[in-house]
Amino acid sequence: MKKILEKIIKLQELNTEMYGKDFLLTWEKSLEEIESTVLTAEILKLMHDNNISARIFETGLAVSNFRDNSTRTRFSFASAANLLGLAVQDLEESKSQIAHGETVRETANMISFLTEVIGIRDDMYPGLGDSYQREIITAVHYGYNNGILAKQPVVVNLQSDLDHPTQTLADLAKMIDYFGGIESLKNKKMAVTWAYSPSYGKPLSVPQGLIGLMSRLGMQISLAYPEGYELLPEIEEMAAKNAEESGGSFEICHDMAQAFAGADIVYPKSWAPLQIMRTRTELMQQKDFDGLDELEKKCLLQNAQHTNWECDQQKMALTREGEALYMHCLPADITGVSCVKGEVSAKVFEKYMVDTYQQAGYKPYVIAAMILLAKTQQPAATLKALQQNGNLRQKY
Amino acid sequence: MKKILEKIIKLQELNTEMYGKDFLLTWEKSLEEIESTVLTAEILKLMHDNNISARIFETGLAVSNFRDNSTRTRFSFASAANLLGLAVQDLEESKSQIAHGETVRETANMISFLTEVIGIRDDMYPGLGDSYQREIITAVHYGYNNGILAKQPVVVNLQSDLDHPTQTLADLAKMIDYFGGIESLKNKKMAVTWAYSPSYGKPLSVPQGLIGLMSRLGMQISLAYPEGYELLPEIEEMAAKNAEESGGSFEICHDMAQAFAGADIVYPKSWAPLQIMRTRTELMQQKDFDGLDELEKKCLLQNAQHTNWECDQQKMALTREGEALYMHCLPADITGVSCVKGEVSAKVFEKYMVDTYQQAGYKPYVIAAMILLAKTQQPAATLKALQQNGNLRQKY
Amino acid sequence: MKKILEKIIKLQELNTEMYGKDFLLTWEKSLEEIESTVLTAEILKLMHDNNISARIFETGLAVSNFRDNSTRTRFSFASAANLLGLAVQDLEESKSQIAHGETVRETANMISFLTEVIGIRDDMYPGLGDSYQREIITAVHYGYNNGILAKQPVVVNLQSDLDHPTQTLADLAKMIDYFGGIESLKNKKMAVTWAYSPSYGKPLSVPQGLIGLMSRLGMQISLAYPEGYELLPEIEEMAAKNAEESGGSFEICHDMAQAFAGADIVYPKSWAPLQIMRTRTELMQQKDFDGLDELEKKCLLQNAQHTNWECDQQKMALTREGEALYMHCLPADITGVSCVKGEVSAKVFEKYMVDTYQQAGYKPYVIAAMILLAKTQQPAATLKALQQNGNLRQKY
Repeated sequence: MKKILEKIIKLQELNTEMYGKDFLLTWEKSLEEIESTVLTAEILKLMHDNNISARIFETGLAVSNFRDNSTRTRFSFASAANLLGLAVQDLEESKSQIAHGETVRETANMISFLTEVIGIRDDMYPGLGDSYQREIITAVHYGYNNGILAKQPVVVNLQSDLDHPTQTLADLAKMIDYFGGIESLKNKKMAVTWAYSPSYGKPLSVPQGLIGLMSRLGMQISLAYPEGYELLPEIEEMAAKNAEESGGSFEICHDMAQAFAGADIVYPKSWAPLQIMRTRTELMQQKDFDGLDELEKKCLLQNAQHTNWECDQQKMALTREGEALYMHCLPADITGVSCVKGEVSAKVFEKYMVDTYQQAGYKPYVIAAMILLAKTQQPAATLKALQQNGNLRQKY
Repeated sequence: MKKILEKIIKLQELNTEMYGKDFLLTWEKSLEEIESTVLTAEILKLMHDNNISARIFETGLAVSNFRDNSTRTRFSFASAANLLGLAVQDLEESKSQIAHGETVRETANMISFLTEVIGIRDDMYPGLGDSYQREIITAVHYGYNNGILAKQPVVVNLQSDLDHPTQTLADLAKMIDYFGGIESLKNKKMAVTWAYSPSYGKPLSVPQGLIGLMSRLGMQISLAYPEGYELLPEIEEMAAKNAEESGGSFEICHDMAQAFAGADIVYPKSWAPLQIMRTRTELMQQKDFDGLDELEKKCLLQNAQHTNWECDQQKMALTREGEALYMHCLPADITGVSCVKGEVSAKVFEKYMVDTYQQAGYKPYVIAAMILLAKTQQPAATLKALQQNGNLRQKY
Repeated sequence: MKKILEKIIKLQELNTEMYGKDFLLTWEKSLEEIESTVLTAEILKLMHDNNISARIFETGLAVSNFRDNSTRTRFSFASAANLLGLAVQDLEESKSQIAHGETVRETANMISFLTEVIGIRDDMYPGLGDSYQREIITAVHYGYNNGILAKQPVVVNLQSDLDHPTQTLADLAKMIDYFGGIESLKNKKMAVTWAYSPSYGKPLSVPQGLIGLMSRLGMQISLAYPEGYELLPEIEEMAAKNAEESGGSFEICHDMAQAFAGADIVYPKSWAPLQIMRTRTELMQQKDFDGLDELEKKCLLQNAQHTNWECDQQKMALTREGEALYMHCLPADITGVSCVKGEVSAKVFEKYMVDTYQQAGYKPYVIAAMILLAKTQQPAATLKALQQNGNLRQKY
């Protein structure tokens, strides 16, 4: 309980302007806002672990809109909403009477009359996910400003084509816990690397989110991928600039071993070539299914040239004292477990399995923190009140 | 807050017998009950807008049964249930183990052991929707009377083949707000008209519900459609009789311009010819899919003869001072936006977009009002208690 | 209210160790634990019927995982969770991003960070359902023991290949109510018999669960089926041993009339031959769809030799005074109603319809009882507190 109070006091000291604000990209938030989010997540987790209710709403809806399959994020969003007292209502576009040509503005308003938050996952097509989220935001602002909506729901990005903030902040929470504080991350080397996977079309949002966020913490980021697997150039450039400003460093290389050398943290993960993802978007829009099949074959062939980009014991041995923290957003493609040849060897994954699961365990609290910070004017005071009122989550 | 109390006092003065009663058709309710429903919806909306909790249930289920796709009504029902403290459980017939030949009586009871309300949308087949809702009601009455159910759940019609009361009462709430009280609607002219749409098979429940309800308020209703697009004759007759009794008028014509002339309100909306809907029902029951395809072609061809039934600026100019209130239950087929040629021109829709969205915004509160009035013996006292106890919806 | 208190006092006297424990098979529970579960279900039902809130949780998730279609159990689980204050989150494997080859361990942990209970239905394949449930349990124990999960969710078996405890305990609750106490079941004769159905592949869990449970109560169990329709031999053996120990009896015969003769209770129900179910599992795993089609034909042909295994008035006349209690887990295949020839004649079903519906009505409370007993250290004290605090379920 003392730990909770200490964190609340720390939160109180941070300067933030998150009330009423959406959460789309970590780089639209100040560093103090990033810290506040992680801190609030930690507080909510401690409260949950100590059976203190964090219910701030009696009633209200949290709308989820998953334009891609999801287990982890779906359950995280549901857990977060429930923790705060909101009921989840899923906007399933297949079951909806969303008229052909119905505007996003209309749909957004129709689902928002009693809605506090809208969580959106739309990560499959470069150039589309983030813009869709912004369209929703514009729509509900319009609704609020025109007397259609009594309250303005906030949008939480549950993964877009650009960023995956609920993931990368969960990652950050794990790193803070593992290394002992956000300050301790300064000068730590983190390898964000491509890894081979037999699957196709994984989004770029996680590596982009990682270099966009971690470069702000004074870390030494080494981004590694085979030629042709570039991330969005503007995000690579931003990461370089961030690193310079934060007193860290940022390099891009095409050698997994180089990135791993001396690393404190490694985050090897597959993603699709940006150019292929872009072509895919076009083909999808043209409904050129033969073209899509061909593209998939081409992409898998290209991937297959890089099966040696696997995180195995040999590569882990290159890291700091051979003991870097291995991280993954899950599910990982594990060699010999979920595929013949994958992103990570079974031995390495096994060793860090508990860590990766714990990493995932921060996500519900990160989402809850995002909602709480957007919905309460004085979050520290709110959290203190919740703790002092002592309402139990399990009451009996 | 004063406004809330005033409305509660007004509600108290109305004579109603809605406790324990289902809500299927507005014409089964007295005018005071209609007024009470709108008034309660307004009170609940004001309470929500002022962060006063309207939670009357700690726990309990609200079952939804959508036999047709839905966004607006699905979210409205979910919002209403949640506002009062109920959890939505969807009866998805595709995922259910409803045995071939299982009786409606059995299913209805099996889903009702802890259920307070059942919302049903079944609007596609003339002669089937309303009767299905009544079958459910008979079944749960049977269950209650035979010691199977401890409480008798009430059924709320979320759209049937006959009526769409949650829509038309939301429409009425908007009209009351727009014109300044239910009394102000007396002698207003309302054009309920067919409109062209490239789509097929839209239900008749909205226009039927509108003429069935608005004809009771002393309004001058002009119902217009091309020959062959009649509504159910018994409802047209009822509307005529209602109008006579309420001191209004009711005419049927086959000219959009005539209906629009001097109108205070226009509600142009596509629907399918009744005869085609009936044939469709038969073909569905016979699983004659070729016949259904042919029917669709025939219907679209028939529709295509009436593309001039569009609500455009020229027709709007015919209305009272060219400024009639344009209404639609949404989504509208907007020319140049959602289709090449549709129910309404982009210009007209744009001008009244905010109004139509606000109109839709009453629906969650209308549904919540229906539930509250069916579930509390002294609704005015309940609402007063909710307000005076001052429990906040967002507590922190 | 006095009735509730009496039952709470009775509950207090029973010796149980159910806190933190999963509920998979009734034969893993002591007789006092079985009694406690039924008693708690009765108390929760009385509390609900008297509008006393049984909400023990402010927030928390109840995860459901239906690997087979379901209405009754789905609604029962939803009702039970809601009654206690939990929100249901469905793990729909089709909508999930469960990676090919992803371990059950990983999925189980990912859905459990804020989860109190996981209800699982997996009953289609002999040898698979129970083992899947145990895999989930092992996984969440692993998570709890390794600091991944703050709380250990309990698993409730909503039907496996072995047992269907939420059904058989609802059956028992009905029998206790009908005959006047669990003691009154001693020496009652119960016929658990196969019955003809035109459908294919019904699980064995209900008859297995019945003989596994009722044989412990000093009843005289007569299990009847056509040759070739054996239940799992180890469960038949266990039932025989149970009967011996409890002072009852257990016989297997191949004649419906013999089982019905003098019976106080009859439970005629179709199931598939075990050997066919096993072959089916293998064919499914090999994705041999032609083989599956053939198997179905073979099975239906085999079933068709036994259409005389129907519970009709003639057979009911053989029971004690012709008035045995007819039971069924529903939906029943009713001759002339849901099929040409089925498990039960329309006359017999009609006579006992209310009883079978009431029987089903215990299931939500049985599930809620299982959760409450696993989640509270002193369930009797908890129930007493709930009653004495007098929080109403419908508050206004």
